[in-house]
Amino acid sequence: MPEYTLAEIAQKIGGEVHGDADIRIHGVAEIASAKKGELIFLANLKYRAQLEKTQASAVIIDAQTTETPSLPHIKAPNAYFGFLQAFLLFNQPKQMLPARIHPTAVVHKTVKIGSDVKIGAHVYLGRGVAIGDRSEIFPNCVILDDSSIGDDCRLYPLVSVREDCRIGNRVIIHNGAVIGCDGFGFAPYQGIFHKIPQVGKVVIEDDVELGANVTIDRGALGETRICQGVKLDNLVHIAHNVVVGKHTVMAAQTGVSGSTTIGENVMMGGQVGVVGHISIGDGARVSAQAGVTKGIASGKTVFGSPARPIFKARRIEATLNELPKMRKRLAILEKKLAKFEKGNNQPL
Amino acid sequence: MPEYTLAEIAQKIGGEVHGDADIRIHGVAEIASAKKGELIFLANLKYRAQLEKTQASAVIIDAQTTETPSLPHIKAPNAYFGFLQAFLLFNQPKQMLPARIHPTAVVHKTVKIGSDVKIGAHVYLGRGVAIGDRSEIFPNCVILDDSSIGDDCRLYPLVSVREDCRIGNRVIIHNGAVIGCDGFGFAPYQGIFHKIPQVGKVVIEDDVELGANVTIDRGALGETRICQGVKLDNLVHIAHNVVVGKHTVMAAQTGVSGSTTIGENVMMGGQVGVVGHISIGDGARVSAQAGVTKGIASGKTVFGSPARPIFKARRIEATLNELPKMRKRLAILEKKLAKFEKGNNQPL
Amino acid sequence: MPEYTLAEIAQKIGGEVHGDADIRIHGVAEIASAKKGELIFLANLKYRAQLEKTQASAVIIDAQTTETPSLPHIKAPNAYFGFLQAFLLFNQPKQMLPARIHPTAVVHKTVKIGSDVKIGAHVYLGRGVAIGDRSEIFPNCVILDDSSIGDDCRLYPLVSVREDCRIGNRVIIHNGAVIGCDGFGFAPYQGIFHKIPQVGKVVIEDDVELGANVTIDRGALGETRICQGVKLDNLVHIAHNVVVGKHTVMAAQTGVSGSTTIGENVMMGGQVGVVGHISIGDGARVSAQAGVTKGIASGKTVFGSPARPIFKARRIEATLNELPKMRKRLAILEKKLAKFEKGNNQPL
Repeated sequence: MPEYTLAEIAQKIGGEVHGDADIRIHGVAEIASAKKGELIFLANLKYRAQLEKTQASAVIIDAQTTETPSLPHIKAPNAYFGFLQAFLLFNQPKQMLPARIHPTAVVHKTVKIGSDVKIGAHVYLGRGVAIGDRSEIFPNCVILDDSSIGDDCRLYPLVSVREDCRIGNRVIIHNGAVIGCDGFGFAPYQGIFHKIPQVGKVVIEDDVELGANVTIDRGALGETRICQGVKLDNLVHIAHNVVVGKHTVMAAQTGVSGSTTIGENVMMGGQVGVVGHISIGDGARVSAQAGVTKGIASGKTVFGSPARPIFKARRIEATLNELPKMRKRLAILEKKLAKFEKGNNQPL
Repeated sequence: MPEYTLAEIAQKIGGEVHGDADIRIHGVAEIASAKKGELIFLANLKYRAQLEKTQASAVIIDAQTTETPSLPHIKAPNAYFGFLQAFLLFNQPKQMLPARIHPTAVVHKTVKIGSDVKIGAHVYLGRGVAIGDRSEIFPNCVILDDSSIGDDCRLYPLVSVREDCRIGNRVIIHNGAVIGCDGFGFAPYQGIFHKIPQVGKVVIEDDVELGANVTIDRGALGETRICQGVKLDNLVHIAHNVVVGKHTVMAAQTGVSGSTTIGENVMMGGQVGVVGHISIGDGARVSAQAGVTKGIASGKTVFGSPARPIFKARRIEATLNELPKMRKRLAILEKKLAKFEKGNNQPL
Repeated sequence: MPEYTLAEIAQKIGGEVHGDADIRIHGVAEIASAKKGELIFLANLKYRAQLEKTQASAVIIDAQTTETPSLPHIKAPNAYFGFLQAFLLFNQPKQMLPARIHPTAVVHKTVKIGSDVKIGAHVYLGRGVAIGDRSEIFPNCVILDDSSIGDDCRLYPLVSVREDCRIGNRVIIHNGAVIGCDGFGFAPYQGIFHKIPQVGKVVIEDDVELGANVTIDRGALGETRICQGVKLDNLVHIAHNVVVGKHTVMAAQTGVSGSTTIGENVMMGGQVGVVGHISIGDGARVSAQAGVTKGIASGKTVFGSPARPIFKARRIEATLNELPKMRKRLAILEKKLAKFEKGNNQPL
């Protein structure tokens, strides 16, 4: 287990020590469960009260905060990112695969394999597959013909990649995810749905992470593209010919229908549904369970199903709480007015 | 790469050429990205403007349309279906498995295998399994005891089929789909959920296509049945004892609860939820994200959660946009009437 | 096939025979499809009419019911639970794996395996894995380093368990489920999402059942815990650091966001979404498709998205049906009042 002084950590993460710089830190932890010798972070002031009770030896805080914890602390440009950097000093990923091709793996003779690649047991690599340097393919993954995986990738167990797909560098794919399955394309004719062959591909750019049991359909013609830095949570579904822009994130169980284009730095909550053939602008935000039925302009936030601009949706939601009372109030008004109407025919 | 004249294609798809019948076509493409020598189709008139800019050499249009494109064109009974037929002339599916049982596959000695079957690496076929002629079982699929697969099926990598299930002919199952897992059946008794053994089976009829990571539960007793021609998109869930009628389609992430019967030619959008023990009539349509809490009559369309008839739901949705204003208008009316009431006690 | 007299069955399930105790029963069935010699149950009086038409030879009913079927019957403390016990007399689970480690399984030399364990073909067990007595690991499962499985567990095909997870006794995990994949944790900094290593684990306690293609994220730090007796249906997603309390059940496609704590005996419908960092009390109920945005007190039921207390939500839902009419009524009132206002300026 490595150990560092607080000063050493501050230097490595680009922060500034306040308090005893020589205390020794041997790990990172959460504020509530930290023990002596451990380093925590405080990014959200609502956890400030917990700071007074923590057993941690030091804390990372935002440089711009006015907080002055009694604990020794590091002021970092971004507390959470600083904590992440400290985290990486202490936690080396477990090495689980030997640096070789497992003898039970079935690797076609045409496969090109880079240096320091690890191929697990019962893996299948089809004709023409290419695996870049230092990539790890865990047991029971299947990669079909002519697909390629870049450098420094990690495919966890039971991931499958269909033929002709391109996966970039530093891509992480979690267990059971499926890349390049057929899109849902049929020509309805005389009461029968006739399959449209899906002959496109999937392109996954660098630094993407895909959650467990995610499904990404191949293009019908052309491609489905997941751009650089995108992060998709578990059980997300991306249909054929969708483009997901750079550094966009989607929480679990969200689904995007065919041919929709999503911009950069978009954030989607979980269980969102998006119709096909629309465009979502850069920086848009979509709240969980929203049903997006039309395009969203850049930077806008939508809510609800069908999705509406957040301010409009919130006003409607708030008014819904009043709705049963509104009905009663309406009935009272009608009665009163009926009285007046009667009165109107008579002398007051 | 095969090449045909426009006349040859028209003849093969049952259409009629207008314009130069001798131009040579070497592929099909989308309207926006087509190049010289490629054939496109126009089914939806909203893409008509693109037709003037396309680089394609010819276009398939509906016979009944009044359009007269300047491009050489084929009039087909159904443009999209005609395009599909043309598509199949040019795109032969990639042959990825050798026509044999891979030596790493584990095949019980009682398994019956038809002619020209392809069994991939690390496949497991349990006791009494049967695989029909020309079917392809991709690497790392698992089929447990006494299940059968018909002729001309394709099970993509990592598909699993539990024991005693019946799969028909020309069925396509995408990666990671699960057929015949236990239904969610428990007897709650004294605060504990006691498992009801799920001893039924799943029957998948001919011409069904199941998306990636779909789950189809076996019957508790009896069967779960997916009828002929049904198409289920990725991550769809079908609970125990459900019947899905012929040529019904469901988009991604939809779920159907136990013992519900769904008619023929039903169309469901994505992320729909359907409660158990109801009946949905032939030709019904369910919009995306709907929550179906009671039966739907044949031919009806529902929308929303809880689902309502589409016209009713749309009126409510439209009125919701007015709701915050309605609250204000109501308050104004109340004030005005209060004034009148006061006035009523005084001489006007 | 075993056969018992009605008296024998009554004795085994703790019930009391009424009618001919000597009739011979050779199986259990559903009320609608039962044949002579079969035993059914009646727990819900709405199926009473079917009882008169059934071909079954006997029926189990609740001891406290006032029903007196003409059919020979057993009065049991709980008809459904009694039926389940009878069910188990007749249905022995199919034995599909031989009691041994299949020669194609890859088992690290450090793995500890209990007695009577069955390990299927193409299974991978990493360094330091432990498998308890009588557990069955079906073909193509993958269990990574230092994870442990208790006694009498059943992992169906293609289940994967990441490193350092703990699975208790009598746990059933269906095909394709993923235990211990990384949580969705990123530090957003300068427009990029930086991965937070997920170094916690998953603990699955005794008697848990997990559906097909379920995903359970490991803790970021610390653990994700699925407590005793929990049942999760297919395609459920549990995020990092969630705790699911004892005997809680969730229907298919439900998702729970990170660090949320769910109490005991909670019941959730399908396609529910729960935000992170909240607490749901014991015995709470959440209806299907609800979107839970804040904590729920013990014993409370919520409905809708965003979720509201059930009575409130139902009143709103009922009023929504009136909403378009309310708008018209409001407009009528406004017109009438406008008339009065005019009238007010004139002699009545």
